[in-house]
Amino acid sequence: MKSVSTFAEKLQAATQNNKSLLCVGLDVDAQLAPPHLLERDDWIVEFNRGIVEATHDLVCAYKPNVAFYEAYGAQGMRALKATLELIPDEIPVIADAKRGDIGNTASAYASAMFDHYGFHAVTVNPYLGRDSLEPFLERDDRGIIILCKTSNPGSSDFQDVLCQYEDRTIPLWELVAERVVEWNTRGNCGLVVGATYPAILERVRGIADDLPILIPGIGPQAGDLQGAVRAGAPRQDSLAIVNAARQVIYASRGDDWKQAARQAALDLRRDINDARPAFAELR
Amino acid sequence: MKSVSTFAEKLQAATQNNKSLLCVGLDVDAQLAPPHLLERDDWIVEFNRGIVEATHDLVCAYKPNVAFYEAYGAQGMRALKATLELIPDEIPVIADAKRGDIGNTASAYASAMFDHYGFHAVTVNPYLGRDSLEPFLERDDRGIIILCKTSNPGSSDFQDVLCQYEDRTIPLWELVAERVVEWNTRGNCGLVVGATYPAILERVRGIADDLPILIPGIGPQAGDLQGAVRAGAPRQDSLAIVNAARQVIYASRGDDWKQAARQAALDLRRDINDARPAFAELR
Repeated sequence: MKSVSTFAEKLQAATQNNKSLLCVGLDVDAQLAPPHLLERDDWIVEFNRGIVEATHDLVCAYKPNVAFYEAYGAQGMRALKATLELIPDEIPVIADAKRGDIGNTASAYASAMFDHYGFHAVTVNPYLGRDSLEPFLERDDRGIIILCKTSNPGSSDFQDVLCQYEDRTIPLWELVAERVVEWNTRGNCGLVVGATYPAILERVRGIADDLPILIPGIGPQAGDLQGAVRAGAPRQDSLAIVNAARQVIYASRGDDWKQAARQAALDLRRDINDARPAFAELR
Repeated sequence: MKSVSTFAEKLQAATQNNKSLLCVGLDVDAQLAPPHLLERDDWIVEFNRGIVEATHDLVCAYKPNVAFYEAYGAQGMRALKATLELIPDEIPVIADAKRGDIGNTASAYASAMFDHYGFHAVTVNPYLGRDSLEPFLERDDRGIIILCKTSNPGSSDFQDVLCQYEDRTIPLWELVAERVVEWNTRGNCGLVVGATYPAILERVRGIADDLPILIPGIGPQAGDLQGAVRAGAPRQDSLAIVNAARQVIYASRGDDWKQAARQAALDLRRDINDARPAFAELR
């Protein structure tokens, strides 16, 4: 009987096989996709098929952001399900959903993401507390990636607020990281920390030594990609998921859109690996 | 030309016309719905149609929790759209989505909820900060109802943590309430505070005098419904939205399910109004 692999095992295998920390964000957008595709009713699926064909040997994961599919209503949700089916089995797929709700509602979200769509991991929001995450946490074969310090400037509004916790004063993001490490009794938790805050990434990596860290916010504006990679993935076996969406999938809107996406993924994988001594052979 | 009414105006009108603070949560669940309905492909819409027919003159709002529709995939999302279309124009409909994301993703969520589905208001999560809420806040005709203190026990994990803010030490829920009052420049914000914490409801009402407060968590376990109502709606013109889902919509699974839902809504409206001197005529 084939054993079910966990999200972390699947992520580790894809990371090693493809020598890559790059996650491609499948954030569909009719305004940015190649115009000639839009004539088709199933353009979302065909676009994703092209991106996956062009990049599946270069990534450690794919991450559709569910919002972009919801914006297309039922058609979008059908396309999301079809997208999950066309991604090769060996690549984990993360639902970027940032869900957070309670009781039977949280159970419904977990069921939607893991059972209906078949995602291997999902991003969730910690604001409602541990019991809100329990329907996700109890799924020990799936990954639960909890928002800690997000990449946007407004993340300072609440995430950076200094909190009193057990005789110490620490920012909320640090408290979230500490609590998630406590809650990780099934070994299925991860954290989100934006590439825009390399010093916080380094600190969170210190608190959550062996958790996968999903790192959004790289791109032209982010500056020090390699600094973020070194902070988030200091060891050869560190699990880090460095997400890029638009700069890969919309690298070109012309007939060369697949080749352009592949080249962008190759370039990013190289730039990320340049910060990682363990993958020196790819330099 | 007919002027567009804001969410608060719509809520105020429905509250006055129906003499009700009761919001019915349209949380569809095949395990709890009348079994004879389930034979139909469109059972979700037919169930909601029955509940709306039975209760539309007794409520100030409806609140579908999006998770329950997502759990049924594309079929569920079609049913959600059809449900919006069958609710009378004069009753505002709140998407309980608890969304929170950044930049163009937040814009996609706002577009999905307000434009594709046509919701009048949406619940959102504050953890990502003000800029994450901006695509919602800029919609001045829609309501943005921000999680403050949720009804679940785990809300204490982060929402109750004491924060240092401008020389004061206040719980995170209080900081959220204060910041939302600052951010309410377009008059379209509201807050979520659970009925399970009447003292916090009273304090939030003091901070956010004229904001709508969405109050979930009533029901057999919650205890003091009237205490929560007095705290959340101390004045005749206080905007409070007291949500009940299962105890109304699943009051019976038999042939009398519509009548049972109506009776449950009548009973709850009366119990809520018993705490409100302004609605004494309904006692």
